[in-house]
Amino acid sequence: MSPEMNPSEGFNQLRRIESSKIFQGVVIAIIILSALTIGAKTYDLPAWAEHSLILTDNAITLFFLVEILFRFAACPNKRKFLLDGWNLFDTIVVIGSLIPLNNSEAVLLGRLLRVFRVLRLVSVVPELRQLINALLKAIPRMGYIALLMFIIFYIYAAMGAIFFAEVDQKLWGDVAISMLTLFRVATFEDWTDVMYATMEQYPLSWLYYLTFIFLTAFVFLNMMIGAILEVMGEEQNALQAQKAHDERDEIVKQLHAVQSKLDELSRRLER
Amino acid sequence: MSPEMNPSEGFNQLRRIESSKIFQGVVIAIIILSALTIGAKTYDLPAWAEHSLILTDNAITLFFLVEILFRFAACPNKRKFLLDGWNLFDTIVVIGSLIPLNNSEAVLLGRLLRVFRVLRLVSVVPELRQLINALLKAIPRMGYIALLMFIIFYIYAAMGAIFFAEVDQKLWGDVAISMLTLFRVATFEDWTDVMYATMEQYPLSWLYYLTFIFLTAFVFLNMMIGAILEVMGEEQNALQAQKAHDERDEIVKQLHAVQSKLDELSRRLER
Amino acid sequence: MSPEMNPSEGFNQLRRIESSKIFQGVVIAIIILSALTIGAKTYDLPAWAEHSLILTDNAITLFFLVEILFRFAACPNKRKFLLDGWNLFDTIVVIGSLIPLNNSEAVLLGRLLRVFRVLRLVSVVPELRQLINALLKAIPRMGYIALLMFIIFYIYAAMGAIFFAEVDQKLWGDVAISMLTLFRVATFEDWTDVMYATMEQYPLSWLYYLTFIFLTAFVFLNMMIGAILEVMGEEQNALQAQKAHDERDEIVKQLHAVQSKLDELSRRLER
Amino acid sequence: MSPEMNPSEGFNQLRRIESSKIFQGVVIAIIILSALTIGAKTYDLPAWAEHSLILTDNAITLFFLVEILFRFAACPNKRKFLLDGWNLFDTIVVIGSLIPLNNSEAVLLGRLLRVFRVLRLVSVVPELRQLINALLKAIPRMGYIALLMFIIFYIYAAMGAIFFAEVDQKLWGDVAISMLTLFRVATFEDWTDVMYATMEQYPLSWLYYLTFIFLTAFVFLNMMIGAILEVMGEEQNALQAQKAHDERDEIVKQLHAVQSKLDELSRRLER
Repeated sequence: MSPEMNPSEGFNQLRRIESSKIFQGVVIAIIILSALTIGAKTYDLPAWAEHSLILTDNAITLFFLVEILFRFAACPNKRKFLLDGWNLFDTIVVIGSLIPLNNSEAVLLGRLLRVFRVLRLVSVVPELRQLINALLKAIPRMGYIALLMFIIFYIYAAMGAIFFAEVDQKLWGDVAISMLTLFRVATFEDWTDVMYATMEQYPLSWLYYLTFIFLTAFVFLNMMIGAILEVMGEEQNALQAQKAHDERDEIVKQLHAVQSKLDELSRRLER
Repeated sequence: MSPEMNPSEGFNQLRRIESSKIFQGVVIAIIILSALTIGAKTYDLPAWAEHSLILTDNAITLFFLVEILFRFAACPNKRKFLLDGWNLFDTIVVIGSLIPLNNSEAVLLGRLLRVFRVLRLVSVVPELRQLINALLKAIPRMGYIALLMFIIFYIYAAMGAIFFAEVDQKLWGDVAISMLTLFRVATFEDWTDVMYATMEQYPLSWLYYLTFIFLTAFVFLNMMIGAILEVMGEEQNALQAQKAHDERDEIVKQLHAVQSKLDELSRRLER
Repeated sequence: MSPEMNPSEGFNQLRRIESSKIFQGVVIAIIILSALTIGAKTYDLPAWAEHSLILTDNAITLFFLVEILFRFAACPNKRKFLLDGWNLFDTIVVIGSLIPLNNSEAVLLGRLLRVFRVLRLVSVVPELRQLINALLKAIPRMGYIALLMFIIFYIYAAMGAIFFAEVDQKLWGDVAISMLTLFRVATFEDWTDVMYATMEQYPLSWLYYLTFIFLTAFVFLNMMIGAILEVMGEEQNALQAQKAHDERDEIVKQLHAVQSKLDELSRRLER
Repeated sequence: MSPEMNPSEGFNQLRRIESSKIFQGVVIAIIILSALTIGAKTYDLPAWAEHSLILTDNAITLFFLVEILFRFAACPNKRKFLLDGWNLFDTIVVIGSLIPLNNSEAVLLGRLLRVFRVLRLVSVVPELRQLINALLKAIPRMGYIALLMFIIFYIYAAMGAIFFAEVDQKLWGDVAISMLTLFRVATFEDWTDVMYATMEQYPLSWLYYLTFIFLTAFVFLNMMIGAILEVMGEEQNALQAQKAHDERDEIVKQLHAVQSKLDELSRRLER
């Protein structure tokens, strides 16, 4: 299955193979097999199963290497291929799998890199790729809201670290730990335990938690509403509005025709 | 009440009975009675009550059997009757109730099957059936989002099983248990306990939890917004837009009439 | 301030007083005072304060009695007054406060009835009354969804009571307790503790919880989306659409005028 | 960098400096540095680091003082400057930082005031200022819903304090503590523990919690839907509707023109 660089004719054949449904299906099947072997390795297995998993893993690594070389060969514009984010991601994951795994540190890293092979499913299935692109587009519109959220967290975390550090070093030791604690409060996870502990020393500290919860919930709610409205403003009704506009345009055109006919009639009567 | 296959005339009578409000009301009442007996059996009852419950249960089973045979008899197209999902469901539940319950294993299964009798309420009340159909229609549009969610869960679960298995076998023992633990984290259920345990060995593991929570929340939020917009795009304003279109159509037609009249006037003046 | 039934003239004066801003303000102030005394009674107070609270309470009861008689006197249509839900509610609360509180049982009931005086704020402030009416209107549209939700809860509760009763009588003892436990699971409140307990006996019981959570979340999500869309379909764009329709109507009318003028021209030319 | 009050020419130069990108960038950088020193102080640091932090802090205080005087000098309308909320906030924060910190009480207050310096980021970055203004605009529309929510909380808290005070003084001691406990219930935070405790004495108290949760969830849901709809009603489609209206207006105008031409034709034929 090794790709050979025959001029033009062979190249077209490569492209035909690459874009064929069978090839896509085989790649997806191998990725799923890869995901299953990654999952299987987390179980306690007998020696022969472990051994066959390692063999399968090597076979998959080889397949992915061949596949990416094949896709590179089949791509007419080599430069564009290398600049595409998804291809870059695929290449890094495949190369990462080639690193020999001897000492225990590298074993963990190698297994971690193999986990990301599952993400190749996203890069191969076009519908998932579209979905990811749509999600990425949604990020910038949340930029300033996220910054505002971060400022709120930072201010409350600094206040928490100043006042509550002596109450519980583990929760309010410094500004970073405090932010983690506040994220916990924002998810309502045992937040009353945190509050009751500080209320023993500062009886009014419930104000700190309630204002924080209201602020974050309020900002979050507005962010959500804003996101809904923004997407709607863009896409919603646009087609219908365009159609209505076109129809009104048609009416105006016909009215112009009526007027020019009337003008002609007038001229004729004047004669 | 046993249905007899008299030609045509008797058949029409069957259909009249089946579609009558009284018949529907009786069926709904029996289903609710069936639900109540199922509920009642979960309480500790005196022997005579247990006994009368068993009698009621048998009577209900008989009624459901007669009812489904009756509806089958009243249906003009027997084949369509058998292919309809709701009828199939009804039939399975009724037949399941006929299995004799002797040994303890079958008793549990039989009671379980009787529980599903309550679902017959959905198949009998048209409004509920419509609602379920509407909900089923909403599933495909969430297909790829659900797949993406599963990939995120799988990757994080694999990472969790690789790194945290030694911390807590019960939470991160293998990839399946890890996925359950991650679902727990996604519902914010005591997720900080899970995090604090792993942070003792891996101080940076809060990154794992925070990225996971943000990713799932972000994808979920976008799924919800997408669902709202998709439904809106389909149904919203469609009637109003159609009405506006029809009215504009009417205007265009009248304009054509005006033009043809003007043309006639012109022709007449030329003469 | 006791109302007297002078004919017509005095009656108009009563109505003028009742609808005056000052009267409304006094009533609102007394209701807030009433709310404060209710709150104050929940604290441990010295004897003199307790005593003055009782005096205040009696004065408020008297005021409310006079106020409702006054409003009754000022109302032109006595029958409509009695049939209005808000007035009925006010009357019951006031009469309930008149019951003498001797034995400890009645004391609790009397205090409970006094708590509902705070609700009179809703019946007095028109904006709140409107809000409540809007909320009440939203209930029927959720009727069938609520019924479906109840069926899901009932089926899962029956299953839970059948299988898990032996695991934990306190959580799964009968179908009612099981429904409460399932509501707890639906709010994600320590639901993993419940699950881990049953998973020890039924290792696959996570399926029970996950399907339940997905079902309720899915139905709830669709209910919310449905509610948003329904309200939007009703109110949204209705004004704009009406305006657009009126304008198009105007266009059609003018077109008719144009056509009749053309017809006249034609007739004149024929002559 | 001390500002001098040269007439007109120097003044324009001040304004040019103030609105320059470089000046804005420097101010933002100093605010971020200020935020970092506030965060750094929450860690245990060696003496030299503590010392340099104090020096940095003094430098920042001086910079902010100079900056605000500079902005005051550059502002053409001194009175408007003082009445602007953001400027007032900046001034208070800067003056607060000038208070000498000797005794331990003032140290905490001083550190607290320094925390609010981070908020200056909001007053300096225009996008964040806009965001905050948008959020502030969203508050009034939630006013009556918030009042209704408060009434619900107050009534349930009063009931809780009356009935459950003897069960747990810490949770239901008085109406204020009860409201805090109810807020905890509304966030689903270990609410079943609270419920199970009261259910031992009042077996029907689950009704209290369930009605409370449903009421608050229902009101909250309606508030959210209302907020979405209100914002949508204002902004959504307004542009499109205006455009459609203008186009229909154009059509009507042209129809008038057609009619006047027809009238002229008629008059001419009559002659």
